[in-house]
Amino acid sequence: MYEIEIKSRVGDLRDLENRIRDLGGEFKNEIFQEDFYFQHPCRDFRKTDEALRIRKERDEVFITYKGPRIDRETKTRAEIEIKTDEKIIDMLKGLGFTLAGTVKKTRKNYILNGLGISLDSVENLGYFVEIETSGDLESGKAKILNLAGILGLKDLERRSYFEMIGEIKNEHK
Amino acid sequence: MYEIEIKSRVGDLRDLENRIRDLGGEFKNEIFQEDFYFQHPCRDFRKTDEALRIRKERDEVFITYKGPRIDRETKTRAEIEIKTDEKIIDMLKGLGFTLAGTVKKTRKNYILNGLGISLDSVENLGYFVEIETSGDLESGKAKILNLAGILGLKDLERRSYFEMIGEIKNEHK
Repeated sequence: MYEIEIKSRVGDLRDLENRIRDLGGEFKNEIFQEDFYFQHPCRDFRKTDEALRIRKERDEVFITYKGPRIDRETKTRAEIEIKTDEKIIDMLKGLGFTLAGTVKKTRKNYILNGLGISLDSVENLGYFVEIETSGDLESGKAKILNLAGILGLKDLERRSYFEMIGEIKNEHK
Repeated sequence: MYEIEIKSRVGDLRDLENRIRDLGGEFKNEIFQEDFYFQHPCRDFRKTDEALRIRKERDEVFITYKGPRIDRETKTRAEIEIKTDEKIIDMLKGLGFTLAGTVKKTRKNYILNGLGISLDSVENLGYFVEIETSGDLESGKAKILNLAGILGLKDLERRSYFEMIGEIKNEHK
């Protein structure tokens, strides 16, 4: 199963949100997400383009493994997500995984024409919109890029928030 | 939290089960457990004395990380167990963990004086009894060894079933 997803930086979320509502977008929820990215004990995830993330949102904890990105425009990649328990962090540390960084954001979720839209306010990074779906790559990608055009999104961003935050840190070293 | 645990091979489970009932042991359940042991991508668990196990029992899946054994007589070690989902196996494989072996057994669980007793019939290995508790090492160990004496258990076995099956395989190579 592929997660087909694009991301774009925007200057302001309010205008975009109004446009999504005007197009019939249905508000789902607003959540605060705290993500913990782990480094593999013997594999450099920056080179292999993988990621292992623990997400805390509300009282829930999820672990997500992301395989390498397989498409030039989108962030599409194989993804396995499992609901888990906070104890997973101690287990990962026992296995030699190390905490590489955290990303905190407030996310508003909308549904429009079967696509998931997230309006993200990311701590220390700014405002972004993500559009995603899952399933067949080509048809999913076409639907997503069509909506991106309607919303006037340009400058697609393939880096994850975690990578972007890491690059800011390196620039300030 | 330590899991304090002993294991002993027995010739027959029926006599032992009657003795446990006579002593006031309370029958809990009988379950079939299928355990999958994984090898770490860059650490030799046989040398570090750790283990990573996926257990399927009934419709449930658990992942358990076991740290090195810390006691000469018992199998006591730090243990983290989390209820999870079958998808965890694909996630582990994605992260470079490889399946090292499986253990299948039928287990009857009893409770006696606050101690857990398992009567195990292990495929290709034979019959065993395990007695376990958690918490303070010294007092837990004393209670367990006392009950082992009452039940006439000798020849404590510190190896896991997985290790024992691996050694049989090596002998037949």
